[in-house]
Amino acid sequence: MRYGIIGTGAIGGYYGGKLAKAGQDVHFLLHSDYEFVKKNGLQVDSCDGSFHIPANAYLFTTDMPQCDVVLVCLKSINNGKLKELLPSLLHGNTLVVLIQNGIGVEADVQQMFPDVQLAAGLAFICSAKTEPGRVNHQCYGSINLANYSCRDEALMQAVVEEFRAAGIETGLVEYHEARWKKAVWNMPFNGMTVALHAQTNELLKNPDTRKLIRDQMMEVIGAAQHLGVKNLDERFVDKMIQMTDVMTPYSPSMRLDYDFHRRMEIYYLYTRPIEIAREAGFRMPKLEMLEAQLKFLEKNL
Amino acid sequence: MRYGIIGTGAIGGYYGGKLAKAGQDVHFLLHSDYEFVKKNGLQVDSCDGSFHIPANAYLFTTDMPQCDVVLVCLKSINNGKLKELLPSLLHGNTLVVLIQNGIGVEADVQQMFPDVQLAAGLAFICSAKTEPGRVNHQCYGSINLANYSCRDEALMQAVVEEFRAAGIETGLVEYHEARWKKAVWNMPFNGMTVALHAQTNELLKNPDTRKLIRDQMMEVIGAAQHLGVKNLDERFVDKMIQMTDVMTPYSPSMRLDYDFHRRMEIYYLYTRPIEIAREAGFRMPKLEMLEAQLKFLEKNL
Repeated sequence: MRYGIIGTGAIGGYYGGKLAKAGQDVHFLLHSDYEFVKKNGLQVDSCDGSFHIPANAYLFTTDMPQCDVVLVCLKSINNGKLKELLPSLLHGNTLVVLIQNGIGVEADVQQMFPDVQLAAGLAFICSAKTEPGRVNHQCYGSINLANYSCRDEALMQAVVEEFRAAGIETGLVEYHEARWKKAVWNMPFNGMTVALHAQTNELLKNPDTRKLIRDQMMEVIGAAQHLGVKNLDERFVDKMIQMTDVMTPYSPSMRLDYDFHRRMEIYYLYTRPIEIAREAGFRMPKLEMLEAQLKFLEKNL
Repeated sequence: MRYGIIGTGAIGGYYGGKLAKAGQDVHFLLHSDYEFVKKNGLQVDSCDGSFHIPANAYLFTTDMPQCDVVLVCLKSINNGKLKELLPSLLHGNTLVVLIQNGIGVEADVQQMFPDVQLAAGLAFICSAKTEPGRVNHQCYGSINLANYSCRDEALMQAVVEEFRAAGIETGLVEYHEARWKKAVWNMPFNGMTVALHAQTNELLKNPDTRKLIRDQMMEVIGAAQHLGVKNLDERFVDKMIQMTDVMTPYSPSMRLDYDFHRRMEIYYLYTRPIEIAREAGFRMPKLEMLEAQLKFLEKNL
């Protein structure tokens, strides 16, 4: 299948690079790194083996061919641009995979493109773009796919198989469960590492913030349960805490955004899920407070 | 009456200074400034007129005479020391006034001294000790007194009258109402100015933190109402916000403590009232979160 990568950074560069290396027909949209990548290709420094590929680089999606699968790897704050970026890439059966953080991204993109087939991509990966055309993949790397509005189950399955053939660990998961499970980790840690200027391990080492992180995770669980999401209870909180306990000290993407004075993904990581839960009658007071603190910090960046 | 001032800083230096200037018999306990004040007296630079007094300075309460009124102006984190400091100052009818922040200070001091007569002193004052023996009184200055366990109503009234004669604006108020009213302002602003490293005006200018401060104030109101405190509802929140809107940008005492790497009064300002409310079945989730953040920040000072 033909792949389009919208946003060739830490995520798009890694997954697109793996697919291209495996021989898939991959087309990369770039912005500031366009000239460099067009000339020098893409370098992936990876814990699983580094590699280099020549890359089909583009500055405009209108120059790209129609694609069977589009991986959207933009930061969610830029999703407004999809209105212009996507149309020329789509044919009648294109699958658009949103590899993004947060809750509500699929609903909003679906509203822009009512007929497009959407899936969520839930990446568990530590990677960063360290310099132009160079991705540093530190650890993990799996990505789960969740069907949001794809009419063609065989297409979803085909993407899974091509990902696996490219050495990417993947599987199909239930959409709501997957998005909310991810939020259980994302909502506490992304914001708290910014608000207290600390890494994951420092927040878990201190008994007060460890308890607070746990309370916030329970708020996400409560919201999800209230919204009818299955297979999500306190045991998942224990699992996330234990997993983070053994992780290398980590600065989530929001912390990196803040440190580098970039806009943070507050809307889809906090505002939207808090709103969705509140409309259903469930409040997340500690995460509301974190949202307000982040908005304050962002304005004062 | 004879007055003992335990802790001659921004608060004790100001009120003790005013009383001494008015001719009362005032005895000051000092620590690091002892030598200086013994030699040079006390200077109060005040918006209401600056003045200088010679001061009866002591390094140990055991050298001080018994007092009719003891004003405790220590930071509440040092209240454990009262066990040694107070006994030699007390006669059978001494009134001990705790001019301190927070909820629960009187209950704990009463446990140390079951028979002592206690009152709360609720100071509305902006002042700071700027150098040895020198207090800078910027604005306000009133102090309300609330009877906690004083058997002698006439004594309370006499203190009020002597304060007034010394040019201190004061009045008698109901204990629980007064302590919780003060907490409505203190709990949000003390911690939030630390957590977001901001002044009161910045927190109110930003719509997100303005809403958050309001939510936190409502948590205090909710707790107080749950505990049966009278005359406290949403209108008091409006009043506190409006008052702060017109105040000079202000760093509360906790923010100064944090900035100067001193221990913060987390226990009586947060831990204790949160505990008291929770035991009565009321939760203050946003203030719980603030407490955890402050404890984290204090450990990482």
